[in-house]
Amino acid sequence: MKINGQNWRSIWLEEDTLSIGIIDQRKLPHCFVTTSLHTYRDVVNAINKMLVRGAPLIGVAGAYGLMLALKEDSSDLALDNAFNELISTRPTAVNLRWALNRVFEKVKKMPKGDRVFGAKNEATLIVEEDLLMCESIGNYGVEVFKRIDQNRPSKYQYKPLNILTHCNAGWLATVDWGTALSPIYKAHRQGLDVHVWVDETRPRNQGASLTAYELSNEGIPNTLIVDNAGGFLMQNKEIDVVIVGADRVTRSGDVCNKIGTYLKALAAKDNGIPFYVAMPSSTLDWALNNGISEIPIEMRSSSEVTQVSGRLISNSFKSEIVAVEILAKGTNVINPAFDITPAKLVTSCITERGIAPCSEDGFRSLFPELE
Amino acid sequence: MKINGQNWRSIWLEEDTLSIGIIDQRKLPHCFVTTSLHTYRDVVNAINKMLVRGAPLIGVAGAYGLMLALKEDSSDLALDNAFNELISTRPTAVNLRWALNRVFEKVKKMPKGDRVFGAKNEATLIVEEDLLMCESIGNYGVEVFKRIDQNRPSKYQYKPLNILTHCNAGWLATVDWGTALSPIYKAHRQGLDVHVWVDETRPRNQGASLTAYELSNEGIPNTLIVDNAGGFLMQNKEIDVVIVGADRVTRSGDVCNKIGTYLKALAAKDNGIPFYVAMPSSTLDWALNNGISEIPIEMRSSSEVTQVSGRLISNSFKSEIVAVEILAKGTNVINPAFDITPAKLVTSCITERGIAPCSEDGFRSLFPELE
Repeated sequence: MKINGQNWRSIWLEEDTLSIGIIDQRKLPHCFVTTSLHTYRDVVNAINKMLVRGAPLIGVAGAYGLMLALKEDSSDLALDNAFNELISTRPTAVNLRWALNRVFEKVKKMPKGDRVFGAKNEATLIVEEDLLMCESIGNYGVEVFKRIDQNRPSKYQYKPLNILTHCNAGWLATVDWGTALSPIYKAHRQGLDVHVWVDETRPRNQGASLTAYELSNEGIPNTLIVDNAGGFLMQNKEIDVVIVGADRVTRSGDVCNKIGTYLKALAAKDNGIPFYVAMPSSTLDWALNNGISEIPIEMRSSSEVTQVSGRLISNSFKSEIVAVEILAKGTNVINPAFDITPAKLVTSCITERGIAPCSEDGFRSLFPELE
Repeated sequence: MKINGQNWRSIWLEEDTLSIGIIDQRKLPHCFVTTSLHTYRDVVNAINKMLVRGAPLIGVAGAYGLMLALKEDSSDLALDNAFNELISTRPTAVNLRWALNRVFEKVKKMPKGDRVFGAKNEATLIVEEDLLMCESIGNYGVEVFKRIDQNRPSKYQYKPLNILTHCNAGWLATVDWGTALSPIYKAHRQGLDVHVWVDETRPRNQGASLTAYELSNEGIPNTLIVDNAGGFLMQNKEIDVVIVGADRVTRSGDVCNKIGTYLKALAAKDNGIPFYVAMPSSTLDWALNNGISEIPIEMRSSSEVTQVSGRLISNSFKSEIVAVEILAKGTNVINPAFDITPAKLVTSCITERGIAPCSEDGFRSLFPELE
């Protein structure tokens, strides 16, 4: 997708093939800065500090991380260590474990001398698959949007199709296209008149910093709202459909996604608005059933809540990026990063194999091999 | 209630009785600053810019505003002009209209020479009634908390009673005590072990800046969360009861309150958690039936969303308060300030006359004279 008119992916193998290039997503939307990761510890740091984020992208970064680890030391011990360090960076999304397992299984049977090459090939395969999965989600999702658009009461058809999304499940969360935003990009390119309501997504503001930025760079009309405002818009018939990504989905269809998703799903249900989850199969965790009791929810630093960054508003022309502390000293804070949207609130899930009910039967029909 | 161990009210007649003292609530929690309002235009400005906010406090400020206007010019024309300017400051809360009407009706029949005195008396009466109403809401509400506390499964009784609130309906939103927070203050003083989850309440962060500040100054344990996190806490049985204030309630029981309240009411319903609305009778608008179609929702400036203030984090010891711009330039934003919680989601309302279902029959049983 485009930034300032140029095509980018969110992660790439540098030309020397010895390091990985990424966009430092913490600095968006104020500065577009790329950086190179040379060791697997650089990758661990980039995931921990959220230079890269988004379940599918974390998976790809992890896969490349194993390649970088093996480049330094291709022993079994080094492989195990890097695997363990990488997998412990973020506990909730399942794509990281899925991608690390794929590379690990591939290379552990290889002679040491072939392991870097093997890891690179598998990571590249994951990247290529991610691209295809996201495009496919887009192709299936755009048909959903077209159907909803055509079925709207004729009195609303003068308006664009109004789509709400939460957090960032765009191309910056994958390699390209995105999951929830992929159908939006496809719709826009096919000439469907769309407008996106973008949830700010406190505390890290991925909606404000990444989704609005992505959409604007692709020329797609969008309006930012605070997370509190989605229910009001639904009550006033300003939202036709909600679409979000996912960090982990249980076999029963419970959807773990960015904190606050559940509240929007409840409001969609209460207002008769379809609520879709866009997810590649790598997000499905067949081993789990009940999302609320079984998915580990990451608790992140309270400083994500108490500190906000932005361009300093001052009389000078310099637009310096600074952080401010918004709370009184000593205020207690907790910061859970995800919540669970029960399957009953999800209209359908949109996957690379098609659209299905968000349920065990639905997943079985699309992914029989995952059981 | 207390700030730094000293008792304060949110508004007062200065000793000269010619001006009104208020706390500049925009500067909290970083600085405690009081200021004097000398003319009704000062009051208009203080309400518009939210130096004072909260439906009951706006009502009191408006009443004093008419007194200040009459001090300058006690003619019918001046009275009408001040009334119209004051009433147009904030369209959603009904308490302002209620308080202005009371003073207006009182003084319009008086000779011009008596009008300042008449307005002062009526405003003082509104203040005294507000104190009593809020205390009474506290007395009724604390019994609700005690009952919920006693009915908790014994395995949870080792924990404090966990209460969630949204925005600020504390003493800073009234004259003293507050509405939703009044039962919490009463409970704490009566020795009930309570802990309050405080919603940040974007975009203006009244939860973070005012509610956490109020509670901490009274020594009540509290923890701040982003607005997105309430559903997660309910799913994990960390919330026993939700209590909020209101800006306007229709006779059918639809509750207009700070944007985002509706989402918490949906989550409470989905998790079987009682959801209470604390409101003085001045918040009831008997003329209206359907909240969503009939209550005008104020749309506020996008700068409330795009700009965030706080203490600059820097290496120097100086802790300067600055504003930062958190969005990319040119991002579209809309900023609705309230939403509607349908009556079906409210367990009961707690008023100065007692507790009743949030419905026409419920209100009729408590306030037969309002019909």
